[in-house]
Amino acid sequence: MQFHLDGFRPGDPRIAPAGAQVAPRTDTVPGQVDVLIVGCGPAGLTLAAQLAAFSDIRTCIVEQKDGPLQLGQADGIACRTMEMFEAFGFSERVLAEACWINEVTFWKPDEAQPERIVRHGRVQDTEDGLSEFPHVVLNQARVHDFYLDVMRHSPSRLEPHYARRLLDVTVDRTATEFPVTVRLERTDATHAGQVETMQARYVVGCDGARSAVRRSIGRQLVGDSANQAWGVMDLLAVTDFPDIRYKVAVQSPHGNLLVIPREGGYLVRLYVEMDKLGDEERVASRQITVERLIGAARRILQPYTLQVEEVPWWSVYEIGQRICDKYDDVSAKEVPSRLPCVFIAGDACHTHSPKAGQGMNFSMQDSFNLGWKLAAVLRKQCAPELLHTYSAERQVVAQELIDFDREWAKMFSDRPSQGGDAAGVDPKEFQRYFVRHARFTAGMGTQYGPSVICGDATHQQLATGFGIGTRFHSAPVLRISDARPLQLGHAGKADGRWRLYAFAGADDAAADARGGVRALCEFLEKSHDSPVRRHTRPGQDIDAVFDLRAVFQQGHRELAIEAMPALLLPRKGRHGLLDYEKVFAPDLNNGPDIFDLRGVDRQRGALVVVRPDQYVAHVLPLDAHQALAKFFGGFMLPN
Amino acid sequence: MQFHLDGFRPGDPRIAPAGAQVAPRTDTVPGQVDVLIVGCGPAGLTLAAQLAAFSDIRTCIVEQKDGPLQLGQADGIACRTMEMFEAFGFSERVLAEACWINEVTFWKPDEAQPERIVRHGRVQDTEDGLSEFPHVVLNQARVHDFYLDVMRHSPSRLEPHYARRLLDVTVDRTATEFPVTVRLERTDATHAGQVETMQARYVVGCDGARSAVRRSIGRQLVGDSANQAWGVMDLLAVTDFPDIRYKVAVQSPHGNLLVIPREGGYLVRLYVEMDKLGDEERVASRQITVERLIGAARRILQPYTLQVEEVPWWSVYEIGQRICDKYDDVSAKEVPSRLPCVFIAGDACHTHSPKAGQGMNFSMQDSFNLGWKLAAVLRKQCAPELLHTYSAERQVVAQELIDFDREWAKMFSDRPSQGGDAAGVDPKEFQRYFVRHARFTAGMGTQYGPSVICGDATHQQLATGFGIGTRFHSAPVLRISDARPLQLGHAGKADGRWRLYAFAGADDAAADARGGVRALCEFLEKSHDSPVRRHTRPGQDIDAVFDLRAVFQQGHRELAIEAMPALLLPRKGRHGLLDYEKVFAPDLNNGPDIFDLRGVDRQRGALVVVRPDQYVAHVLPLDAHQALAKFFGGFMLPN
Repeated sequence: MQFHLDGFRPGDPRIAPAGAQVAPRTDTVPGQVDVLIVGCGPAGLTLAAQLAAFSDIRTCIVEQKDGPLQLGQADGIACRTMEMFEAFGFSERVLAEACWINEVTFWKPDEAQPERIVRHGRVQDTEDGLSEFPHVVLNQARVHDFYLDVMRHSPSRLEPHYARRLLDVTVDRTATEFPVTVRLERTDATHAGQVETMQARYVVGCDGARSAVRRSIGRQLVGDSANQAWGVMDLLAVTDFPDIRYKVAVQSPHGNLLVIPREGGYLVRLYVEMDKLGDEERVASRQITVERLIGAARRILQPYTLQVEEVPWWSVYEIGQRICDKYDDVSAKEVPSRLPCVFIAGDACHTHSPKAGQGMNFSMQDSFNLGWKLAAVLRKQCAPELLHTYSAERQVVAQELIDFDREWAKMFSDRPSQGGDAAGVDPKEFQRYFVRHARFTAGMGTQYGPSVICGDATHQQLATGFGIGTRFHSAPVLRISDARPLQLGHAGKADGRWRLYAFAGADDAAADARGGVRALCEFLEKSHDSPVRRHTRPGQDIDAVFDLRAVFQQGHRELAIEAMPALLLPRKGRHGLLDYEKVFAPDLNNGPDIFDLRGVDRQRGALVVVRPDQYVAHVLPLDAHQALAKFFGGFMLPN
Repeated sequence: MQFHLDGFRPGDPRIAPAGAQVAPRTDTVPGQVDVLIVGCGPAGLTLAAQLAAFSDIRTCIVEQKDGPLQLGQADGIACRTMEMFEAFGFSERVLAEACWINEVTFWKPDEAQPERIVRHGRVQDTEDGLSEFPHVVLNQARVHDFYLDVMRHSPSRLEPHYARRLLDVTVDRTATEFPVTVRLERTDATHAGQVETMQARYVVGCDGARSAVRRSIGRQLVGDSANQAWGVMDLLAVTDFPDIRYKVAVQSPHGNLLVIPREGGYLVRLYVEMDKLGDEERVASRQITVERLIGAARRILQPYTLQVEEVPWWSVYEIGQRICDKYDDVSAKEVPSRLPCVFIAGDACHTHSPKAGQGMNFSMQDSFNLGWKLAAVLRKQCAPELLHTYSAERQVVAQELIDFDREWAKMFSDRPSQGGDAAGVDPKEFQRYFVRHARFTAGMGTQYGPSVICGDATHQQLATGFGIGTRFHSAPVLRISDARPLQLGHAGKADGRWRLYAFAGADDAAADARGGVRALCEFLEKSHDSPVRRHTRPGQDIDAVFDLRAVFQQGHRELAIEAMPALLLPRKGRHGLLDYEKVFAPDLNNGPDIFDLRGVDRQRGALVVVRPDQYVAHVLPLDAHQALAKFFGGFMLPN
């Protein structure tokens, strides 16, 4: 955490100074904004928190409900999501408060007494080394709270406008400045019926599975009909079921059930399989009560007892895997000729079974993908064509998730096979599938294909553990200026900046070497072709757009900070203070070092280019200076 | 973190429900309180945060300044202090925001060119395994903020009353209920001159080196006269001194200097040796300016440059090691016949050189020691004679610290010896002394002697790593109910409860064993002599006074939570919910396990009794049931 750069400020460093151009918040929504976000769910708040970092962007976020969410809904937080929370600066609050999922246990009918369930397997929840963060569970409402804090303390001082129902969205393609007009109806008692009209450059619908924004751009969710009803309930209960604090998948002759232990040590969530539904039948028609859910859970958990003391929240739903074919208002064939100005994200584009714990996590990754792109275009860092990559990237990976999710939900709902029984799902097979897909569940299943912002794999072998298109996989390092052990990936904050991680090769091994890292610095500092020189504006800090960090192979005591090129010890801010946080050594005290862990070529080194959303954009040789310049020239505007 | 025990509550779980008997806060101080704390420094706030946990105790804290501290003063946070912050629930906030001290470097005059300093040594700051927490540096004002948050969110909703100057403290030894009367003068513009009178059962002076409370009980600081002036300044500066982000001790022909890097990555603190003072001379007489401090720092750092951009805070002071012989209002010879009702803590009892980074840390340990004792007496859990142990324990360890501190400060101020020079301190010797005393500096130097609350060492060999009288040294374990890896010591929260850690011996190794842990549970649950039965009141949770935790030797998958005695899976709270957080297995994935790390006898096991302030009170055999009962009977009241 870096602060005091522009002078000492007392108090909480997470509370940024308000931007000079930030207008005081009013009760009514502003008439014109750069971005209007519809919906205060995980997708909307991730986007709002990202945009709020830039006080030169006018953002507004509206929500139909009359205040922040208090309870219920999603709760699973994948490792990948924790990595993103770290970038937003609140991972430690989630770690402290959440329930950690460490192991999963599997239960099936006892072969001797099929009325009784028995444990037949245990697996570690997250494979070793997959992420520096655990898989945790925490009420979605608390995630909202943390994002709301980030927004409130940002330079934009952004806060939602609640009790707004979207009436309509109209796009005037001839308008040059604010093509989208949105009408909102206020729904609180004092203002009920009042209509507000807003103009926006961009509108993002994060308004859920029944998205009004989606409807306004003529898109729809398509996919499986939902033919299985499930119940979900949060319980304070007393049970002799011994695994109630583990994540548990129970298959029984009476149906299936998933146990998700919850934060605080007492609360538990049960997902309970309920009725098969007819084609096109909605679960509401079944009038399922919480008593029925509890009754079903009790039958499934036999011979164990379940004494329910309190049900803070419950719901019933159909499983349905549905997806939208495009996430913006430009059809596939119009892409070359038109620019998008209305987007959808989260449940508005895809719905899942909650079983895989993916809905909330995937939705936040949608808008984390979109956020930096909107910011870069609005701040004139990138050409607006960049915005096409949002739908192109996120729709494809959502389709992959849906396919996974469909298989998983099907296995979950199938009867367990017994003995020689050919029908149904083999419990061992179920467990194997779970393990195989643990990466997907952890949020690591995403790999973006080659595009203007994602390079080809020509030089992937220089750093095999940093797969192009996958999220940058952090590893431990030591900062040479103060010998502090830390995670290299935590340099990547949600600040819209690109990270260039230069891993030194053999020619940088000597203390006085003029190797690849130093030559790269020389190019970036001095060449006319340097992306740093091309795309950073006069007056900005030298690392305002590209944050270069170097990792050497020597121990930290063999490296001298004072011998580093200026770009690795830059002067910044009002006072021209030195930034000492750019150069790292491997952490040699705790097993294999970062070069071994991530398959970095010790001879040649590697340059790993990481996007503002933490995904690897490119892997290049350290001396591929022109290739680097060309890559950024492909979508960034010259200053 | 456990919550929702008495029913689900939305929102931040750190915000406790307000106690039913808590009166709304008024602008004036209350007329009668259980405890009045004078002074909102680290000692006062630690005490206030501890007492605030109990809404049945009426606490008031007053401060002479007119609002919370904004900057300056102390900044070093020892590992031991971090452990205490964990107990108060804000360690993760400090870890995220603070500067970590990882290594210390030592500089001395270059033998060839004595005008130039050169690095002659580096040492790791904290020895491996000393604590699960690092040594960090953070503005004292932020520590205050975190405590103020704890108080504000506690069941007592405690907030300080600022702008109160203590006029006098009078004790009426004949009064049975509220023996102490205090008069306060308001100093804010609106109320200037108004005098408030309060009655209190206990008054604690945390009002600094010039403590008015100390004066009121006729005690004084005695010790060395201060004959060395030092300057301290927080800087935003540009320098080519390469170790500016390390903790550095510089000895030069121009004097000595200490570099302390600070939070945020840019700020740095320098302690600079200034003038020798005459006997009884105060530093104020020297009229030392910040320009002189900067000039001295520049001379000492030659050949390196120092360009100062901003000085957010600076000060000059004399080094003086002084201490008070007794920390309460009962003289040594009156101890058998009188009970204390006025105490002093922190700088009011002892002052140090800031060089060892001890003042703030030691002060907080003072009042952490006192807090649970006051609470236990006020809540009628313990006899008031317990309060004598505060001065008895803390005065002795402070004297030890003073002795260390005097030596350290002397070495620090001495000229470095050169070549065959017999005078001055050998730089190598200086570095060796630093290393040897690293435990003291980390806050681990404290060991309380035998007393009514600290057992003798008869059975110390059962757990050699849990020294009786030292702080409970945490180690990694796995919770068996959910396979979560965690630190055993983090079970110890600042909630006034005693922890009984039962380490299983060989006879508890079989899954169905009836070994020492189970026999202990049987005794504690059923025997008439059981301290749990004797000292826990009807209606209280079974672990309200004694929090029993068991650590077995098997891997967690070999242990069945459902086979545990009721005391290790207790029903608690309004709903009688099960508490699943009492039983642990060793963490077998990461090196030596807790039995090896802490020298616990694998054959016989051990019972480690830990006080509410995290110090080991006793080590006993698991079957020493009567000895355990006798120990608690020695100072606890029957219910």
